[in-house]
Amino acid sequence: MIVFLSDFQNSEYAGIVKGVIARILRKENKKPEIIDLTHGIERFNIKQAAYVLYSAHKFFPHGSVFLGVVDPGVGTERKGIVLRSDEYYFIGPNNGIFSLIDFKHAYEINENKVAELSGLGVSTTFHARDIFAPVACFVELHIPMERFSDEISVDKVVKIISEPVIKKEGGMHIIEGEIIACDAFGNIITNIKARNIKKFAEFGKIIDLQINEKLKLRFLPSYGYAKKGEVLCLINSAEHFEIACREGSAKDMLKIKGEEKIIITFEK
Amino acid sequence: MIVFLSDFQNSEYAGIVKGVIARILRKENKKPEIIDLTHGIERFNIKQAAYVLYSAHKFFPHGSVFLGVVDPGVGTERKGIVLRSDEYYFIGPNNGIFSLIDFKHAYEINENKVAELSGLGVSTTFHARDIFAPVACFVELHIPMERFSDEISVDKVVKIISEPVIKKEGGMHIIEGEIIACDAFGNIITNIKARNIKKFAEFGKIIDLQINEKLKLRFLPSYGYAKKGEVLCLINSAEHFEIACREGSAKDMLKIKGEEKIIITFEK
Amino acid sequence: MIVFLSDFQNSEYAGIVKGVIARILRKENKKPEIIDLTHGIERFNIKQAAYVLYSAHKFFPHGSVFLGVVDPGVGTERKGIVLRSDEYYFIGPNNGIFSLIDFKHAYEINENKVAELSGLGVSTTFHARDIFAPVACFVELHIPMERFSDEISVDKVVKIISEPVIKKEGGMHIIEGEIIACDAFGNIITNIKARNIKKFAEFGKIIDLQINEKLKLRFLPSYGYAKKGEVLCLINSAEHFEIACREGSAKDMLKIKGEEKIIITFEK
Repeated sequence: MIVFLSDFQNSEYAGIVKGVIARILRKENKKPEIIDLTHGIERFNIKQAAYVLYSAHKFFPHGSVFLGVVDPGVGTERKGIVLRSDEYYFIGPNNGIFSLIDFKHAYEINENKVAELSGLGVSTTFHARDIFAPVACFVELHIPMERFSDEISVDKVVKIISEPVIKKEGGMHIIEGEIIACDAFGNIITNIKARNIKKFAEFGKIIDLQINEKLKLRFLPSYGYAKKGEVLCLINSAEHFEIACREGSAKDMLKIKGEEKIIITFEK
Repeated sequence: MIVFLSDFQNSEYAGIVKGVIARILRKENKKPEIIDLTHGIERFNIKQAAYVLYSAHKFFPHGSVFLGVVDPGVGTERKGIVLRSDEYYFIGPNNGIFSLIDFKHAYEINENKVAELSGLGVSTTFHARDIFAPVACFVELHIPMERFSDEISVDKVVKIISEPVIKKEGGMHIIEGEIIACDAFGNIITNIKARNIKKFAEFGKIIDLQINEKLKLRFLPSYGYAKKGEVLCLINSAEHFEIACREGSAKDMLKIKGEEKIIITFEK
Repeated sequence: MIVFLSDFQNSEYAGIVKGVIARILRKENKKPEIIDLTHGIERFNIKQAAYVLYSAHKFFPHGSVFLGVVDPGVGTERKGIVLRSDEYYFIGPNNGIFSLIDFKHAYEINENKVAELSGLGVSTTFHARDIFAPVACFVELHIPMERFSDEISVDKVVKIISEPVIKKEGGMHIIEGEIIACDAFGNIITNIKARNIKKFAEFGKIIDLQINEKLKLRFLPSYGYAKKGEVLCLINSAEHFEIACREGSAKDMLKIKGEEKIIITFEK
């Protein structure tokens, strides 16, 4: 099964990639099985794509092949990669899109070998179609990796999202994190995880935090516990700390641009 | 076949739900077959979802399992339900989303039993993934209903859309209805049905009606019979009375908010 | 395999059409295989649909059946058609949507025969569901064309996109073309092809052109070679001459409406 994420929005580009996949797999008598994870990633927002791939991948069948394409550098020097974990494969540009994936092996795609093996040309503007879709098919067909890629050191895989910093200061516990992404509903997702928060906070309490301005928000189990229009904080379904607004957009209400720092302070 | 409707727009949430379905069905050696009905329901617009499920479901293969998720109350007291008609199943929150479905049996989902049977955890914010997707699989796999739900009286299923009222007054026939939804193109859909209208009106005639302001609109067989930019009324493809604008948005032109009353008056 | 393009955006209309296809094919014990090419064609933009069908179709498996529905004239006199090339079928309204397809045979759909064969009614507003989806199934099931259509002369197929004009004037080479469409990212696509341009221009050079105003743009191999925000020109992945803006919208920057002329001038 191939699982496809991109920032192609509702354009034809996602459809064409699926056409290429169907064509290659059918030639080998394999029925294409493709699930669109989403094509609604904000244009060129690699961090958002990284978060979505991370939070979503473990719900898919073992053996799934993730095709992740958010690729502002298409046609330039950046290389394509394949990552392998115990249970999944990930294919896309080496630009940080797999920052949050826990993988064991990394391979750099050899574009010439891909073109030779696929029999397709390679444009400079549409590698999802010309490079990544064929590679996804090769992996799905269990073609040996060395026929289209070279194993590289795992350190060569680009990472662009940091871990939160947790420290004690003047009798306070302080968590310094960053905003990774806002989802389609204006929920603000941070790099702070449930386990970072849960030792300090309980549902129903007020949390003191700062993003641009200082805020005091209720920490609640779910959106539905807040009043309509209330900005709240919660642990989201990917076990990350999130700021949301019931039936509204927290992103708009707090004027979030997308890469702000967040500082949470707990009295001891 | 599972048919999936939500208000998840182009976010990753629909993709994750499909991942869960694929994972559960494949474990039982069943190929997942999923059709997206739409994920473009206006955020939290339960009435619009109810109309779309009603107008669409009868075009799908018998035996289809409809997963309908527009769920502002997720994580609170509201319960999940399964409805069964002679030909279809419907799964979602009991909040009015199935108001227009003609069903025979109703079952309340037991979340603990679902979690046990699926082996998945249950978050407070994403029941489409944690509860409704597994239940759709159980139904698709013909697992007996009592293993994850309890039959309830059909009266317990929440309804939020009324029937139009038809009356005679001072020698006039009057139909009082309401707007159920506007579609993606600004067409205004009412709860008035073809059979309510057709005894009083013929194509080509002017219809007198009131929504906010008084209007005189041509009643035409199709959009293409109107002039560009003309507001017209017609019987839509779901056999409902609709107000539209050729190559424009009737919703914007008449400044419709979404739950207005409509009064149609026919001289005798 | 049925490949589906429309201007239905994220509405339920595409989902309903897929339901009809699944229903008809399953009755004949054929598993439906449907790929959405895109439903994001700008509402009623037949030229954009024509370009997308043309640039995308050759990436799909041979034998694919393309269902293309952008149909402002639905319910009026315009007829439905089926086109056949050596490798593909195309089904939709005869309004120019297949202007760029190179086909061998054309058939006019007989709506009465379709209704009889499908056993479905025919609305005046939703021929994608009532006519084109059944016809796509008939073709997919290899039902003889004469059972639901009549062969017509290939000249009867409506064409709405012209070829560029190339001429010499005062020692200059001049190419006069037109804008066909803008894609979801604001890239401006013209009817000028790579082969029209490549004898006069090399990557890295400045090209003189006029759309509304006079412009001097770098001709580059790919978006990534331009500076952020630079308007450039390039050969796109469908081998057409395109004007783009790196990480921006050329359409917005040049205030393009969509059907402007473009004149390119090369010093000899």
